[in-house]
Amino acid sequence: MRTKSTETKKILKLIRPSIRELNAYSIDESPCRIKLDAMENPFPPTHQVSRAIGTAARDALINRYPDPFARKLKKAIAALWGMNPDLMMLGNGSDELIQAIILTFGGPVLIPVPTFAMYEITSRALSQSVVTVPLKKDLSLDADKMLKKAKEVEARVIFLACPNNPTGNRFSDIAVRKILGRSAAAVVIDEAYFDFSRKTYLPELKRFPNMIILRTLSKIGFAGLRVGILAASPLIIEEMNKIRLPYNVNTLSQAAAVAALKHKDIVKRQISLLISEREKLYNALVKMQGITPYPSETNFILFRTAIDATRIHTKLKQAGILVKNLSKPGRLENCLRVTVGKPEENLEFLDKLNKIIRITGKG
Amino acid sequence: MRTKSTETKKILKLIRPSIRELNAYSIDESPCRIKLDAMENPFPPTHQVSRAIGTAARDALINRYPDPFARKLKKAIAALWGMNPDLMMLGNGSDELIQAIILTFGGPVLIPVPTFAMYEITSRALSQSVVTVPLKKDLSLDADKMLKKAKEVEARVIFLACPNNPTGNRFSDIAVRKILGRSAAAVVIDEAYFDFSRKTYLPELKRFPNMIILRTLSKIGFAGLRVGILAASPLIIEEMNKIRLPYNVNTLSQAAAVAALKHKDIVKRQISLLISEREKLYNALVKMQGITPYPSETNFILFRTAIDATRIHTKLKQAGILVKNLSKPGRLENCLRVTVGKPEENLEFLDKLNKIIRITGKG
Repeated sequence: MRTKSTETKKILKLIRPSIRELNAYSIDESPCRIKLDAMENPFPPTHQVSRAIGTAARDALINRYPDPFARKLKKAIAALWGMNPDLMMLGNGSDELIQAIILTFGGPVLIPVPTFAMYEITSRALSQSVVTVPLKKDLSLDADKMLKKAKEVEARVIFLACPNNPTGNRFSDIAVRKILGRSAAAVVIDEAYFDFSRKTYLPELKRFPNMIILRTLSKIGFAGLRVGILAASPLIIEEMNKIRLPYNVNTLSQAAAVAALKHKDIVKRQISLLISEREKLYNALVKMQGITPYPSETNFILFRTAIDATRIHTKLKQAGILVKNLSKPGRLENCLRVTVGKPEENLEFLDKLNKIIRITGKG
Repeated sequence: MRTKSTETKKILKLIRPSIRELNAYSIDESPCRIKLDAMENPFPPTHQVSRAIGTAARDALINRYPDPFARKLKKAIAALWGMNPDLMMLGNGSDELIQAIILTFGGPVLIPVPTFAMYEITSRALSQSVVTVPLKKDLSLDADKMLKKAKEVEARVIFLACPNNPTGNRFSDIAVRKILGRSAAAVVIDEAYFDFSRKTYLPELKRFPNMIILRTLSKIGFAGLRVGILAASPLIIEEMNKIRLPYNVNTLSQAAAVAALKHKDIVKRQISLLISEREKLYNALVKMQGITPYPSETNFILFRTAIDATRIHTKLKQAGILVKNLSKPGRLENCLRVTVGKPEENLEFLDKLNKIIRITGKG
């Protein structure tokens, strides 16, 4: 036993302290009928799309390495969003692009909080420091505090999710442009929810050479493919390409995404439906006693509960509905986040939530 | 113009100096009839396998995030190689696992040279220092020098490719075990070519708690799927899982690899054929005047040419055959590396090489 514990200590000493301090990213894998926790598109590929993907996969020469520049996929994405395929870098999900950005520029990394958890997790995993500035009470961005802090700590990267996750709101253009224009750091505008807000900083890439835009195929129906998109100046793309793993987007995801994006009309129809479902969901939540939803430009809604959110979360889970529990002391106390699902899923969620609140509220 | 150049300078100053010094990983994308440069399995998926992959892809729920623990795929890989699925971590190719190892332990990273280029490239991309120790003249590992250097620089990670790429030989067990047993560093045994050497350190994981084993599906027919495998002690797996991107192996690669590995017999038959082809290729090269091949336990052969290797490389390319040019002053001067292809490809390569040598040798 003594030897073993000595061995364990030896190994632990080899691991970077910044890694030892980390906790693994936790994913709630509770089995559930209705999964409304992860901002996925609730619609599985249509018959037409899944057949196209099946054929593309069947014909793929998976014995060869993938196209390292994912040329066809870049073209398909460029066509979807009106981007320039030459000023684009793809990643194994935007997770990998977030990692690549932090590796390229290094820390300190400055973020408003609350925001997407992976900015902080990834910075720490890369042993880079993270500095946070709270959002204002109304969940808006405090541009002046961000700029002050950026200067003070000499931030090298600032992440701004526009719209923001988990709050669902889009920061004001004035605040964002202030940070873009006045900060010395690389400013990442994460437009993961672009399709649900339909607003973008993409045309301003030339105006703000320190801007990096992120997009993803994950929220519009293709989370399983892991395709993240980065747009930036030629200079930034060139430097970032140096650290990109050469075969980071696999053959099947490339082929499947190209095949699926031939059916843009389906994607767009689903997004329109989800936006209209989001509005219905919001309007229903607003009317519910003891529930305060926040306006959303995404495919999810953050809401605050008058009674203990964790209890509601548990009861929803027991009813087969998984939402995200964000409740902890601070800005998100008693907050839950629900992803917009299929119409019937949203109705059942509202129904169950209503019942839980009435019963628990009395108890 | 002045503003622009000031802007460019500003951005460049933001980028970490270690990144600015890097060159992007270069891939020879010359069009060619016969591709023998990248250690790919030359056989596209058989009809049976490609149909299974097509079906798996068609049925995949790509609107959802992938299984973050790739449970089914781990089981399938465990069954293929007699591994423990619980002491395994998967990566987006071993490229990502190499990155994860360096992130977990940090540098200095110690490697023998020549070896797989990505150890050094990735270390530098992660702003970690790299220390090299040359192989002996006969391409064997200098264990004593490695240990001395490891101590001197306080190496935290040592990479040993067993068998080694681009040399093709397997280091002696005595030398490797010496490093495993006496070094304070984490020692990575990269068994990417295990299937072609059929020798492994896997059963010695308990004996050497500082050992990490890497495998890959890339050399045995599935380079396009990007599936790398890491095996190590529970402690190392636990720590490394903290920095793994949660959805690093996409849904389609998981499903396709599970489907393909149901046809293990096909994989094994192809490997046997490639091993016998490697022996034929070696025997033919040995007999060729002006060519000195090195014995190989991989799916490629390194050979030295009496005349300028770069000229031979170019002429082979002109004939539609792509091999890898490794020639540069030092251990690999006038060295080329040919991947074992299909029988007819190997024959054509030998024929063309023979002709080129005879003509160029005279000229």
